[in-house]
Amino acid sequence: MKELSLLSSIDTPDDLKKIPPEKLAELASQMREKIIRDVSRTGGHLASSLGVVELTIALHYVFDCPRDRIVWDVGHQAYAHKILTGRREAFGKQRTLGGISGFPRISESPYDAFGVGHSSTSISAALGMAAARDLDGEKRRVIAVIGDGSLANGLAFEGMNQAGHHDRDLIVILNDNEFSISPNVGAMSQYLNRIMTGKFYTSFRKGVGKLLKAMPRGEFLSRIAKKSEELTKAFIVPGMLFEELGFTYIGPIPGHSVEALLGTFRNLENLDGPLFVHVVTSKGKGYAPAEANPEFFHGVGTFDMETGKSTGSAEITTYTDVFSDVIVELGRENNKLVAITAAMCAGTGLSKFRETFPDRFFDVGIAESHAVTFAAGMAKEGKIPVVAIYSTFLQRSFDQIIHDVCLQNLPVVFAVDRGGVVGADGATHQGLFDLSFLREIPNISVMSPRDGAEMAKMFRTAVESGRPVAIRYPRSAVPGVRLLPESATIPWGEGELLLDGHDILLIGIGTTVSICLLAAEELRKKGVSAAVVDARFLKPMDAGLILPLVRRIGRVITVEENVLAGGFGSAVMEMLEAAEELPAQFRRIGFEDRFFEHGTIEEIRAVAGVTPSHVAEEAVRMCSSGRSLLPSILYGIRSRLEKIV
Amino acid sequence: MKELSLLSSIDTPDDLKKIPPEKLAELASQMREKIIRDVSRTGGHLASSLGVVELTIALHYVFDCPRDRIVWDVGHQAYAHKILTGRREAFGKQRTLGGISGFPRISESPYDAFGVGHSSTSISAALGMAAARDLDGEKRRVIAVIGDGSLANGLAFEGMNQAGHHDRDLIVILNDNEFSISPNVGAMSQYLNRIMTGKFYTSFRKGVGKLLKAMPRGEFLSRIAKKSEELTKAFIVPGMLFEELGFTYIGPIPGHSVEALLGTFRNLENLDGPLFVHVVTSKGKGYAPAEANPEFFHGVGTFDMETGKSTGSAEITTYTDVFSDVIVELGRENNKLVAITAAMCAGTGLSKFRETFPDRFFDVGIAESHAVTFAAGMAKEGKIPVVAIYSTFLQRSFDQIIHDVCLQNLPVVFAVDRGGVVGADGATHQGLFDLSFLREIPNISVMSPRDGAEMAKMFRTAVESGRPVAIRYPRSAVPGVRLLPESATIPWGEGELLLDGHDILLIGIGTTVSICLLAAEELRKKGVSAAVVDARFLKPMDAGLILPLVRRIGRVITVEENVLAGGFGSAVMEMLEAAEELPAQFRRIGFEDRFFEHGTIEEIRAVAGVTPSHVAEEAVRMCSSGRSLLPSILYGIRSRLEKIV
Repeated sequence: MKELSLLSSIDTPDDLKKIPPEKLAELASQMREKIIRDVSRTGGHLASSLGVVELTIALHYVFDCPRDRIVWDVGHQAYAHKILTGRREAFGKQRTLGGISGFPRISESPYDAFGVGHSSTSISAALGMAAARDLDGEKRRVIAVIGDGSLANGLAFEGMNQAGHHDRDLIVILNDNEFSISPNVGAMSQYLNRIMTGKFYTSFRKGVGKLLKAMPRGEFLSRIAKKSEELTKAFIVPGMLFEELGFTYIGPIPGHSVEALLGTFRNLENLDGPLFVHVVTSKGKGYAPAEANPEFFHGVGTFDMETGKSTGSAEITTYTDVFSDVIVELGRENNKLVAITAAMCAGTGLSKFRETFPDRFFDVGIAESHAVTFAAGMAKEGKIPVVAIYSTFLQRSFDQIIHDVCLQNLPVVFAVDRGGVVGADGATHQGLFDLSFLREIPNISVMSPRDGAEMAKMFRTAVESGRPVAIRYPRSAVPGVRLLPESATIPWGEGELLLDGHDILLIGIGTTVSICLLAAEELRKKGVSAAVVDARFLKPMDAGLILPLVRRIGRVITVEENVLAGGFGSAVMEMLEAAEELPAQFRRIGFEDRFFEHGTIEEIRAVAGVTPSHVAEEAVRMCSSGRSLLPSILYGIRSRLEKIV
Repeated sequence: MKELSLLSSIDTPDDLKKIPPEKLAELASQMREKIIRDVSRTGGHLASSLGVVELTIALHYVFDCPRDRIVWDVGHQAYAHKILTGRREAFGKQRTLGGISGFPRISESPYDAFGVGHSSTSISAALGMAAARDLDGEKRRVIAVIGDGSLANGLAFEGMNQAGHHDRDLIVILNDNEFSISPNVGAMSQYLNRIMTGKFYTSFRKGVGKLLKAMPRGEFLSRIAKKSEELTKAFIVPGMLFEELGFTYIGPIPGHSVEALLGTFRNLENLDGPLFVHVVTSKGKGYAPAEANPEFFHGVGTFDMETGKSTGSAEITTYTDVFSDVIVELGRENNKLVAITAAMCAGTGLSKFRETFPDRFFDVGIAESHAVTFAAGMAKEGKIPVVAIYSTFLQRSFDQIIHDVCLQNLPVVFAVDRGGVVGADGATHQGLFDLSFLREIPNISVMSPRDGAEMAKMFRTAVESGRPVAIRYPRSAVPGVRLLPESATIPWGEGELLLDGHDILLIGIGTTVSICLLAAEELRKKGVSAAVVDARFLKPMDAGLILPLVRRIGRVITVEENVLAGGFGSAVMEMLEAAEELPAQFRRIGFEDRFFEHGTIEEIRAVAGVTPSHVAEEAVRMCSSGRSLLPSILYGIRSRLEKIV
């Protein structure tokens, strides 16, 4: 550990400030080594954090945190920040159960000015913090650090638009690595590229003054004079677009030169109003494997430091893998099918589709709302768009799903990946709300597959349905062996009785079907006979299958990987209520009404009690409690009476 | 009707094309007269539609709809479009039950290329339609018509960003009237103003060619040459910002000159790629009262054509009025309170607050997502932001409520106006999803007041609570006489038993409390004794009040002005399930799983069956049906047995 001696002296930014400027490059190198070593053991967002090591050091060297506020957009680049602000040791256990979060959290440190996880919130949040500061008449810097990918999101634009209008002191630092999660798309990205390749600007700046003085007088010049400030900007400022939005543009600044960064940040003291500092960095900087493959090292599992090769578990087949194959097969059969994602091409498994059908693939960048309305436009013209977006990010498309897709009943298929617990990414990324927010929308149907074969069938069913459909699946391996896509569909709105029994009915959907099956197995050993239903459709729900079973068995447990409020269990209960068949013994198991932090998927499920053993326990309790048995007997009497009457 | 002879000859755009160009100004004048007359009887979005009469005529004169597609952003400016496309007669009954919608709807006419109602979707949808067209190898124009207020929304920016990158044929027409619903804010708006005041550009365009040729050669010029195209643009193009985003900018065009519009649109034939046509119009054009007060005439009730004075019902006090007073009073008591809205200042009743506390009022423009994250930033710094946004528009902030407010447990108070049925605005605007999507979010509390006094107390309670709270209230009059704000709070999490009874328990929240009380009165006449509870809190729910009543009475009806899926009734049912006290007779009344169209609020409630008489009917059925009585008897036995055991 000797070689990390500079780093080990730092517990707070004050310690950092004691290091002479000429040693900061060395510190950066030690920081990189620590980040690479620790992340190789825990997994995490490596490439982004490596790209901002110098930027982070320079920020904490010049500014005075926590008095000054730094808002890290998304936050997956905040590792150096965490290490410099009292979490050097804790960093080794980031993203593990009980360890620190992989993202800034206000509950974790006063240096984390604002909690993040989803992209593009930083400018809006920082502007709110600046507005509060100004009301209080205080003086402090508020700094948003945002990547070029995040800047292309509508929320960031809304923040810029208001910030440019307000004229408050606010610093927006653009961390421009020409990369979001996948390579960037969009006009803004092209514009930033033009700035960076436009080397002529610097000399232009010097020349333009002369030019204006040298030009012949006359009508033309007098008109220029009126607008000289604007025109001068048009000439000399590479970041004209940001200037037009009310910001003072500074840049581009080489983002791996501590000297250049310190100089720039110190100069900011003399400027006020909204400042836009354009810093150019390389994603994965300083670690060859990450520089070579920043997409892989964006979010990575454990890996070997020397080779950069994954050291995770042996190759598994995930739901995402199955989707990847299925969507190509369906695309081959039906040329109306198009695929759309929002900077999640590799993550959602669409890379194969992109290669196979480049004309029918659309990555709109980090713009989830737009992705859905764009899909609605295509669907209106006869296409069948499959929109692949992670569950928590689809929260950003909620209104577009209602207003643009479902109200018009357009055949858009939502591939809702990362539905349920996601594990190490934690609270901001747990896909625990989708069943509730999707099913309340009229016209949409919602399914969730229990395994790969079912998933293949569901996508075929959805694509052929001609309606809005969401298919929700988790970030995990499909149960059993690798399953090839099947060409069959599933009957619309039908669940499946997987196991019959007479003491209790367990109803699952998606991932929780296997939990129900394992619970049934436990129960069998205890002499309790459980029936297991895979609902398959959250909506429309298979009343024809479930009602007679409920009537016969009388005790029901629903199990879901979703919040309990308004989720799957409530949907079952609503169906039973509508049929006036509410059983006396009904129990919903799922995620209670709070946020769930990071850990492995299994750990978080255990914390929530969404496990076979907890289901079995509840079942035993329901079957054995005298108090609870009574209504079941009465129900038996009732149903017999009904048959007689 | 003689004076409308030109207009009456038009049933389709083909008829329009038979009118010689020199008569189009006269047609525009007839169109205005019809719009003003009809809207004075039905109410509607007058000012926007008056602003685009010439624009609409010119579009349909030059383009070939429905082959070409026009996507009207928001759609409240599409009255002339409706009248020109076969709905001249039907227009007189727009926004009424069974009449045509106030917005374009694909189900209403093939000329309505895309359904709208919420702002800023047009560019995304049009781009999707253009992408589909290109895949099919077809040739047609796709045109998005968007207002300057809508352009400031993040979704519009996301659409622009992708459109500028794609290089597809697409026409974006900016209808720039310097106004969204309230006067515009934001840097984009300031930028557009600069363009419009920059009259020098036209001559500049002529002069610049000469200048470039005349300049001395040398290092400087050679560098210019390299980037001459970009530089030329910087010189001659007022819409540089749009050019930088990949669009060809055309404008500004005077929007009330049919001649200029026809000339411009015909010239577009020679251009391809993404085109941005900047048209300058006046909101309310041609009707003096609307020109003088465009905010009032944005969305207006019935009025007298001559005077412009409202002819609506005598002055009533709405929930919005009560909020307007209460928020000023609370603001006076607590200087931490700030108010935020998204272009709904007058609509949400914040005008008084803005006048009283200009520094603590923030209108962020049509940027609902940003409004919430901005609020979270302020809350993080110790402020208590009250965010006033209509229910359906709050759908655009769903992720920000989860991720920025609730995950960090910040004290943001949401004033959710237009919760429930809104009436004439119809399906896109019905606030029927909020109870479901809000209550699934951890850490938030949700209340809804039954009258003005309760509302005042609830806001005080919320502001003092230090937590995220949503208060949801309808677009309608508060029951009873005008109520002054009360300085009391309500006990946290407590509902209220308003009427005791023994046959059936009716539970309402917000608007449905009075429905329950009226139903109870009907029931009393029929000899049925109903208890009525105002739940007040959707979350946390008052189990301490409700459970013993359910246990005692055994029959429950919940009534809500929200979709049934995951709504209030389900929340009650979940609470009973968690307590293992599900009654055998439980019935939820609310909005079934479909979209609800326009009509008066009372008509739509009647369509949905959310009325006192329907509640009373259901109650009678539950109390008298032998089949349903059985479980109730059995429950009676059960509860007696339980007492014994």
